Amino acid sequence: MSRRQLLLLSSSRVYGYKYLELAAEFIQQLLASNDVRQVLFIPYALKDHDKYLEIVKEPLERWGWEVVGIHQFKDPVAAAEKAEAFFIGGGNTFRLLKTLYDLNLIEVIRRRVLEDGIPYIGSSAGTNVATRSIHTTNDMPIVYPPSFEALNLIPFNINPHYVDKDPTSKHMGETREERILQYQELPEAGPVLGLREACVLCIDGDKVTLKGKNASRLFIPGKTPKEITPNSDLSYLLQKT
Amino acid sequence: MSRRQLLLLSSSRVYGYKYLELAAEFIQQLLASNDVRQVLFIPYALKDHDKYLEIVKEPLERWGWEVVGIHQFKDPVAAAEKAEAFFIGGGNTFRLLKTLYDLNLIEVIRRRVLEDGIPYIGSSAGTNVATRSIHTTNDMPIVYPPSFEALNLIPFNINPHYVDKDPTSKHMGETREERILQYQELPEAGPVLGLREACVLCIDGDKVTLKGKNASRLFIPGKTPKEITPNSDLSYLLQKT
Repeated sequence: MSRRQLLLLSSSRVYGYKYLELAAEFIQQLLASNDVRQVLFIPYALKDHDKYLEIVKEPLERWGWEVVGIHQFKDPVAAAEKAEAFFIGGGNTFRLLKTLYDLNLIEVIRRRVLEDGIPYIGSSAGTNVATRSIHTTNDMPIVYPPSFEALNLIPFNINPHYVDKDPTSKHMGETREERILQYQELPEAGPVLGLREACVLCIDGDKVTLKGKNASRLFIPGKTPKEITPNSDLSYLLQKT
Repeated sequence: MSRRQLLLLSSSRVYGYKYLELAAEFIQQLLASNDVRQVLFIPYALKDHDKYLEIVKEPLERWGWEVVGIHQFKDPVAAAEKAEAFFIGGGNTFRLLKTLYDLNLIEVIRRRVLEDGIPYIGSSAGTNVATRSIHTTNDMPIVYPPSFEALNLIPFNINPHYVDKDPTSKHMGETREERILQYQELPEAGPVLGLREACVLCIDGDKVTLKGKNASRLFIPGKTPKEITPNSDLSYLLQKT
């Protein structure tokens, strides 16, 4: 049993950076240290898979990695069985999760990451599905997945693209914090990490570290939300509460 | 068979107005013209039903209407069978819809509004569940309802609290328009009305009119989104496309 290795990005696009550029150092280090030559890209969160693959290829090939799209294989489960690394991109979380269920990919990806130690990189929706469930996605429920339970590679929830209330706004809809606290009114809810853009969560075995250029906001049921600065150790979130 | 009468608010709270105040004229007119004495309030979108009832009672009782909460009845279906008017308030759309399913309220509310002509007032989540489905809610999927299909009192979708992209923002998450257009990539998607805050949609039989103090944005699959000004006739949205 190898150790799990995950890199969970709040977003692939960060203001002032090119696509994936903010996380370049972490991605390169993860892939190089695992002798990965080819990354299996999973584009199901967006409609146009070929176009999405081209976007992802650009930086990854420039950095020296081959990229193939899982949609190019007749048998996606077999492709996942042979993958050296997974990258699941952002888009609509409901569409992504439904497709993973429809194609029977949940179990194989989970096993390969948790048992075989295959590196997993997720961004936005790809970060949501790596967690225990998609209960804290920001996306519209455009399709109905058979469950909100997800890959469960980590036992807590993440809210990607976490944003604070704009104090100048006249908009009266719920803030992100209010939405997360509504979730945590439920007895089955656990911790939620609000990953602001420019945040990257690194999971290496049982060690969880916040990386990137921004603080995150951590919500533990029954406690006051708190700010988490980059380089903080969050390994305690892997303990089931 | 009486004619359906719906008042669908983008939000109960509008910047610069008290709770429900922006829609006061429309609510009073609807209830008075139907000789309503008592409104059945449905608070399931929020956790604290008693507290929510008090908030709603304040303006409605001041305007001359009695308000009872459906949660105060042992048999909610029987309460819905006897209701003179429904008001479904906002909060979390998933929690609201799941509760309506769990308590077997979908069919009875639908029948009473569409066949008996009982007035229906909805706000935010209460507006979402009045439409064909909750596919275009902004809320977090904090609980898993048995379906995203909703009361289907009108055959199109609404996005309440519709907002435009803030041109000064550095946030890179999808805009509301992008999210709605992603929904409309699906072949089963129909029209979506983006109801900005301070918008009220009035449905009287087969007549649909936009009221309130703000324009809305209409998304028809395959067409360029367009602005709809207050007092526009939108009756054509009742035709199945």
